[in-house]
Amino acid sequence: MTSKTTYKHTVQLSEIDFSLRATIISMIGYILDIAGVDADSKGFGIKKLGSKNHSWVISRMALEFYRLPYQYEQIQISTWVNDYGKLLTVRNFTIADEKNDLIFAAVTQWAMIDISTRQPLDLRYVEEYNKYLCAEPSPVENPRKITAINPQKTVIHNVVYSDIDFNRHVNSLRYLSLMVDMLPIELLTTANPTHVEVNFLRESQYGDILTVGCEQSETKSLFEIKNSSNIAICRASIEWKK
Amino acid sequence: MTSKTTYKHTVQLSEIDFSLRATIISMIGYILDIAGVDADSKGFGIKKLGSKNHSWVISRMALEFYRLPYQYEQIQISTWVNDYGKLLTVRNFTIADEKNDLIFAAVTQWAMIDISTRQPLDLRYVEEYNKYLCAEPSPVENPRKITAINPQKTVIHNVVYSDIDFNRHVNSLRYLSLMVDMLPIELLTTANPTHVEVNFLRESQYGDILTVGCEQSETKSLFEIKNSSNIAICRASIEWKK
Repeated sequence: MTSKTTYKHTVQLSEIDFSLRATIISMIGYILDIAGVDADSKGFGIKKLGSKNHSWVISRMALEFYRLPYQYEQIQISTWVNDYGKLLTVRNFTIADEKNDLIFAAVTQWAMIDISTRQPLDLRYVEEYNKYLCAEPSPVENPRKITAINPQKTVIHNVVYSDIDFNRHVNSLRYLSLMVDMLPIELLTTANPTHVEVNFLRESQYGDILTVGCEQSETKSLFEIKNSSNIAICRASIEWKK
Repeated sequence: MTSKTTYKHTVQLSEIDFSLRATIISMIGYILDIAGVDADSKGFGIKKLGSKNHSWVISRMALEFYRLPYQYEQIQISTWVNDYGKLLTVRNFTIADEKNDLIFAAVTQWAMIDISTRQPLDLRYVEEYNKYLCAEPSPVENPRKITAINPQKTVIHNVVYSDIDFNRHVNSLRYLSLMVDMLPIELLTTANPTHVEVNFLRESQYGDILTVGCEQSETKSLFEIKNSSNIAICRASIEWKK
């Protein structure tokens, strides 16, 4: 058993939009980066897994946004793993501001894959994983399954070099960026996201042609990205407070 | 007068491609980020300029790549300003690895603008700027003017939310990412960039429709991004060693 680990970060200019607040994508970027750094520091990160040809891939996430931090704010990102089964492990996050007020919380579910076969591995046999569990409950309810949507609007995206990461597939954050880019810029720069859920369903590769669909209601945006075989790759929902 | 300032950085997973080396875009991102951090630490960064409604914009850059660092490498980014005139200031960079071997060098030219009028300001009257000059010469020859190209290939890009930065225009790095994405992925992940030059000519805004052109020869890639009025926004060249 272990405790939460906390990392400090100052919100950089490259992480804000012209509302001078960190973007939704930057906030998700923080937790994905910290997931990597924290796993590496404990000996079950990509640094160690790479030599075995294994890697972590994210499956689902549920995020609560209480407010978006501004440029130059110092934030504290805490993370802990509190559960794992055969296929998925649960990594949690909270982000607090300088006054120690909670501004964000998240629960994320990850699988470990074999890089060659792209098949999931049985997490119960990961060496020493058990000793890094922390008994603290998740700060957000587990992410649910998101169903197919009826898009009012779609855009086509050809997967290019900058979409692909070290895992040779489209980066998780890139799917979310493609989705967010479909929304009116006024909404993104004046409203506040409250609850976000994402289901990562399949991988996509360099050269794939993706269709990004968006179904927008007053307070909720639903998204679905499909490949050229009409198979869903990623789905997400963003709830808003105006 | 002052001396060079050095910042440490570890190459992160989100900064590499599947060749496990930092991307060209990440390398340029390092120096743009450090330019901001260093200017802020000396009192002439966006942190201070923002309150006066002024901002820095980059005009040209010339970059020498000796090698791309690998994931988890610790690098040292040094920067110094060695000249300024009425319109442009010269900021230099070197990046060294853990053995203190030089892996990258750059010279960049910046203008200061009034955010409302988008017009350049006279740098000679920037308070206290003179005391932060460092007499060290630039490590690379000044960037030259890049002329129009004859593209063999073009792609259209609609400017979206994630392209725009806190300055309300397309982020400098985004132009370069659009250019690099036109190149064969084999070139990007197996060849070594040697010399890169960029001319940032005009701003573009949310909703603009850009045409990205590429002219590729054996060892050199030339790029030009034009807006829908056929006016050049950004030009660049990348030389390669295979």
